[in-house]
Amino acid sequence: MIGLSSYAGVMESLMNSAEEQQPSSPLANSWSKIQESSKNQKPKCVGGFVLVHAGAGYHSESKAKEYKHVCKRACQRAVDRLKAGALAVEAVAAALVELEDSPFTNAGMGSNLNLSGEIECDASIMDGKSLHYGAVGAISGIKNPVLVANRLLSEAQKGKLSAGRIPPCFLVGRGAHDWAVSHGIPPCPSEKMASKFSLSAYKRNKRKMELAEKIDTGHNHTKKRRQSSENENGSGCLDTVGAVVIDLEGNVAAAVSSGGLAMKHPGRVGQAAHYGCGCWAENACSMNSHSTAVSTSGSPFLAGEDRVLGGVIVLRCCRCVEPPPSQNIQGILVEFLWSHTTESMCVGYMSAQDSKAKTHISRLPPGTVPGQCLAIEGGVCRLMSVVE
Amino acid sequence: MIGLSSYAGVMESLMNSAEEQQPSSPLANSWSKIQESSKNQKPKCVGGFVLVHAGAGYHSESKAKEYKHVCKRACQRAVDRLKAGALAVEAVAAALVELEDSPFTNAGMGSNLNLSGEIECDASIMDGKSLHYGAVGAISGIKNPVLVANRLLSEAQKGKLSAGRIPPCFLVGRGAHDWAVSHGIPPCPSEKMASKFSLSAYKRNKRKMELAEKIDTGHNHTKKRRQSSENENGSGCLDTVGAVVIDLEGNVAAAVSSGGLAMKHPGRVGQAAHYGCGCWAENACSMNSHSTAVSTSGSPFLAGEDRVLGGVIVLRCCRCVEPPPSQNIQGILVEFLWSHTTESMCVGYMSAQDSKAKTHISRLPPGTVPGQCLAIEGGVCRLMSVVE
Repeated sequence: MIGLSSYAGVMESLMNSAEEQQPSSPLANSWSKIQESSKNQKPKCVGGFVLVHAGAGYHSESKAKEYKHVCKRACQRAVDRLKAGALAVEAVAAALVELEDSPFTNAGMGSNLNLSGEIECDASIMDGKSLHYGAVGAISGIKNPVLVANRLLSEAQKGKLSAGRIPPCFLVGRGAHDWAVSHGIPPCPSEKMASKFSLSAYKRNKRKMELAEKIDTGHNHTKKRRQSSENENGSGCLDTVGAVVIDLEGNVAAAVSSGGLAMKHPGRVGQAAHYGCGCWAENACSMNSHSTAVSTSGSPFLAGEDRVLGGVIVLRCCRCVEPPPSQNIQGILVEFLWSHTTESMCVGYMSAQDSKAKTHISRLPPGTVPGQCLAIEGGVCRLMSVVE
Repeated sequence: MIGLSSYAGVMESLMNSAEEQQPSSPLANSWSKIQESSKNQKPKCVGGFVLVHAGAGYHSESKAKEYKHVCKRACQRAVDRLKAGALAVEAVAAALVELEDSPFTNAGMGSNLNLSGEIECDASIMDGKSLHYGAVGAISGIKNPVLVANRLLSEAQKGKLSAGRIPPCFLVGRGAHDWAVSHGIPPCPSEKMASKFSLSAYKRNKRKMELAEKIDTGHNHTKKRRQSSENENGSGCLDTVGAVVIDLEGNVAAAVSSGGLAMKHPGRVGQAAHYGCGCWAENACSMNSHSTAVSTSGSPFLAGEDRVLGGVIVLRCCRCVEPPPSQNIQGILVEFLWSHTTESMCVGYMSAQDSKAKTHISRLPPGTVPGQCLAIEGGVCRLMSVVE
């Protein structure tokens, strides 16, 4: 289990070191940019910051370019929405749509196929302002599972259904698909969901499985099961995608989407759909001076696993303590990080003041073993908003 | 959200007061009983303690007898298993089967019907020894959903599947049903799953809904939704059942099962199936001297709800600090509690040394409002095991 609370300590120590590095942060000069733009009557509280990832797993050099591209596009989408005045939760959904639409990520189109050769997706989204949450599990035939999760969230915010019924926030399987279609989200034929890559991976995995089971025949099955290789379904298959966003009003949001494990049993729901597991977002409040948004990637319920393979992206934000350059400018300090125990993780980040996103393939130090070593990197960004 | 961590503080303060009350606890004299039984060569480390509940909601005096009966039977089933040498996780599953089989509880047989008139159940189980977890969501046509959750848990403990695949621990919908049947759990015709009570409630709710929607016609729908009564789908419908168990080896286990909200959307999965939400069990370890098992009841994801309606049962156990009466006897101190914000909650508890279970309908103090007031009660029990 990738417990969200377990990152708190790590984050704290990284944040402290990140704060010291502020002057060298690539985004630290956004302060002066905003001062200029404030003179041009920029709309109030429009803008923000987004951090995305396109999977914690193994990214070969050949695949790196594609993953960086999709991260860049996802950041741009979120920033476009933020500049148009969208709240964090809308922007985070927009980023996820772009990540899901890539045939190279294990989310939405091009997801891993299950044992029956079908694609079943998990996704969830959380709004730090209302603490509302929406999720779908094992949903088929929908191009963007995150849009169903987001719609569940926004429908729940409208209040009770007729006769005082509590609206659903987590739907699975056929019921989730039917709810989506009845709420205007178009179905997508399953043959359009699979990519060349996911189809050929399915055929390869199927042969591998049949071979493994043939070898098992005549042996003690249980014993064989325990001994079977742990690497065959390894880190390459954990390409869950995610994003975390803060808008200039200080609202945070987080989202996650995944096609789940390759060759999983139909109906299997993974961490991406689980409340408190796949993502979390919580605005600052009287009890907590920081807003936090987290999105995780990795196998759920890892008790008993030898190697814990996963990744996480985190935002932590607060009002700037140091006095702003003028009375009508308010600052938000955004601390962000990514961390993974997989071989690599592809991330992108961008503030509304940046002309384009920065992308990065983070790798474990050479010679270290995935699951036994942790890579952490991050930075700091200051967001400025004009207050009337 | 009924957050498990939020009970920690409450538990701590209750435990302190419970410890002071030890002499008056109905189970406090189990020490002397065990001393006697140890002379009769009782098998090593057989026995334990179980706490169950048959729902936090509203129990009329007329229903009280039925609920007490089912709690009594569930405790007896668990204790029978413990006496036969079963571990905590087997005993907790046995208790749940009894609770599910009652047509009066909203779990297994007699569960609430969904919008389509079908029964879809959620259940989960956790083993504090291995920290393994199994869960099913929105499963239909299976008499005892907890047995599928338990089977997922035990299959996962056998290790990886062929070709290194990670076994599932959470299955939903059709996939969950098919997995269960392929693992020897017989399907149950849906007409046998509904009870007279759940069928008549469905018809009543359906009429109520149609009437509410007729009234809505011509009005602003969104506005109407927000204004609709909050009590119609109220506390009576939250009859999730649960159990927590400790065996004499000090292993704890927890389980929960629910038919979910009446008139829910097909595919809706509730708290009972969510990792870290419906139940939790964790043996004592080097970092924690206490074993803990928790099972909750209530609507999931309650952000934005005016009234948080739910209930919880908790076990906390540790090795007795005071010296045992003889060298070859080891003591376990079991602290247990139940708490609810609903009008009432029906609980039962029993140790392997008791001849029969104690049952109790806990009620909020007269004149208090459900969701705005919390009832907490509990006790202490000492378990003794003979060590060679």
